[in-house]
Amino acid sequence: MKILTTIKELQEARNEIEGSVGFVPTMGALHDGHISLIRKARAENQTVFVSIFVNPTQFLPGEDLDAYPRKEQADKKICEMCKVDYLFMPDATTMYGEDEVLIKAPSKSYILEGKTRPGHFDGVLQVVLKLFGLVQPTNAYFGKKDAQQLSLIQQMAKNLFLSVNVVPCDIVRESDGLAMSSRNIYLSKEQRRDAIAISKSLYTAAALVSKKEFDIETIKNRMMQVMENLDVEYIAFVNREFNELKQIEVGNSIILIVARFGSVRLLDNMWI
Amino acid sequence: MKILTTIKELQEARNEIEGSVGFVPTMGALHDGHISLIRKARAENQTVFVSIFVNPTQFLPGEDLDAYPRKEQADKKICEMCKVDYLFMPDATTMYGEDEVLIKAPSKSYILEGKTRPGHFDGVLQVVLKLFGLVQPTNAYFGKKDAQQLSLIQQMAKNLFLSVNVVPCDIVRESDGLAMSSRNIYLSKEQRRDAIAISKSLYTAAALVSKKEFDIETIKNRMMQVMENLDVEYIAFVNREFNELKQIEVGNSIILIVARFGSVRLLDNMWI
Repeated sequence: MKILTTIKELQEARNEIEGSVGFVPTMGALHDGHISLIRKARAENQTVFVSIFVNPTQFLPGEDLDAYPRKEQADKKICEMCKVDYLFMPDATTMYGEDEVLIKAPSKSYILEGKTRPGHFDGVLQVVLKLFGLVQPTNAYFGKKDAQQLSLIQQMAKNLFLSVNVVPCDIVRESDGLAMSSRNIYLSKEQRRDAIAISKSLYTAAALVSKKEFDIETIKNRMMQVMENLDVEYIAFVNREFNELKQIEVGNSIILIVARFGSVRLLDNMWI
Repeated sequence: MKILTTIKELQEARNEIEGSVGFVPTMGALHDGHISLIRKARAENQTVFVSIFVNPTQFLPGEDLDAYPRKEQADKKICEMCKVDYLFMPDATTMYGEDEVLIKAPSKSYILEGKTRPGHFDGVLQVVLKLFGLVQPTNAYFGKKDAQQLSLIQQMAKNLFLSVNVVPCDIVRESDGLAMSSRNIYLSKEQRRDAIAISKSLYTAAALVSKKEFDIETIKNRMMQVMENLDVEYIAFVNREFNELKQIEVGNSIILIVARFGSVRLLDNMWI
């Protein structure tokens, strides 16, 4: 595995490569969720790039940019074990200059995650577009856990006619159901135990749908019963384009949850 | 020459091509300026794409979108004669959907041409990025006449790490010095005659610089004398990054002029 830190190194490496390129952009602190993306990229492409870059433009003032978990050595080890060909680890001055061309995410970036984090998705799209420009991937892998992010990246690829194939990847969970997240390490033992209720409520919803219950209020009430001890920020029902649903459409619905544990926000969702 | 109008046609054509691709994006009404770009693209690449698309997002409300000259038949003929391989002529609904990911040009897009046309360059960068996504050119050719546009496209390519090589091309002039423009046809006989003073004033500036006159006020006064009968909107002195100059730097200066003839604005400039 080659570790690249400069634009020049990345571009020189890319220029020498022929055949399909799989790309997994990350912010590091890799867990089994990331590993599943990397494994998929490895299985489906001739060459695999992973990037680790804690992107400052997607953090709002006062957010946890500096506190975001960094585990450089462990991350390198994981990438090596997953047979990554190139690991790109630039710093912020490598990725950004002054007074840049910016990306403006569409209006659906201002609901749900974007409602409490206005501008967050502008930064996400900006760094993803930059990384796509550099890596020129055939396939790029994103987890369904950040469903709104995935939807916006798919829309950007469509709007800008990018040649990359954006591949959605299933959520990876702990054995008790909790969705993998770099932020799970911040949970106390008690919070960690309570957090199981998030995924439980999603399984409850799925079970109801399988019994032909499509009414959103009914499903939402049952989910809230399961999460009665949690500080639930929102439960939302959207279609794959992130338009709000009036009732469940099987094959075109996503149920999203955000719950708070002190200052930690945990996201989870289920595609139905 | 193949004429393509849909995204699918364009992408299928592009997928079959190997080797270098030269691309000349235009808004049609092709004149000798465009032809020089196409000839350069033809000489330097294995395959040549030209696009003709009067891009609505770069026109502000009340501007001349509907009145912009359209000469489809003549344009096709010209492209054929210049041995263009693919002519892409999409309509607006082919290029744009609803509520799209947008591009936000940097602050230098709000001076000079951007001052009277706020948002104009956002639209320019948006359509150029879309076309780059579709055509995936090795080399893309832009005239120096729209110097600020060229500078912003170069910056976008740099900021987004695009693999395209943006090639600046010299201004093509009528025999009396007037810079070629699709809008020249709107000039009356008298305006057409007066318009010569624009390029004359630029040659006057160049002559002064060659005599080691680097003071901007002195040069500007002499230029204004040459254009004393014209309605000059601005004369500006900037470096190649479009930062305002305090004095002429040989090899890094551009002198820009906009003059008005009734409702017609004519642009010209000289790279020094």
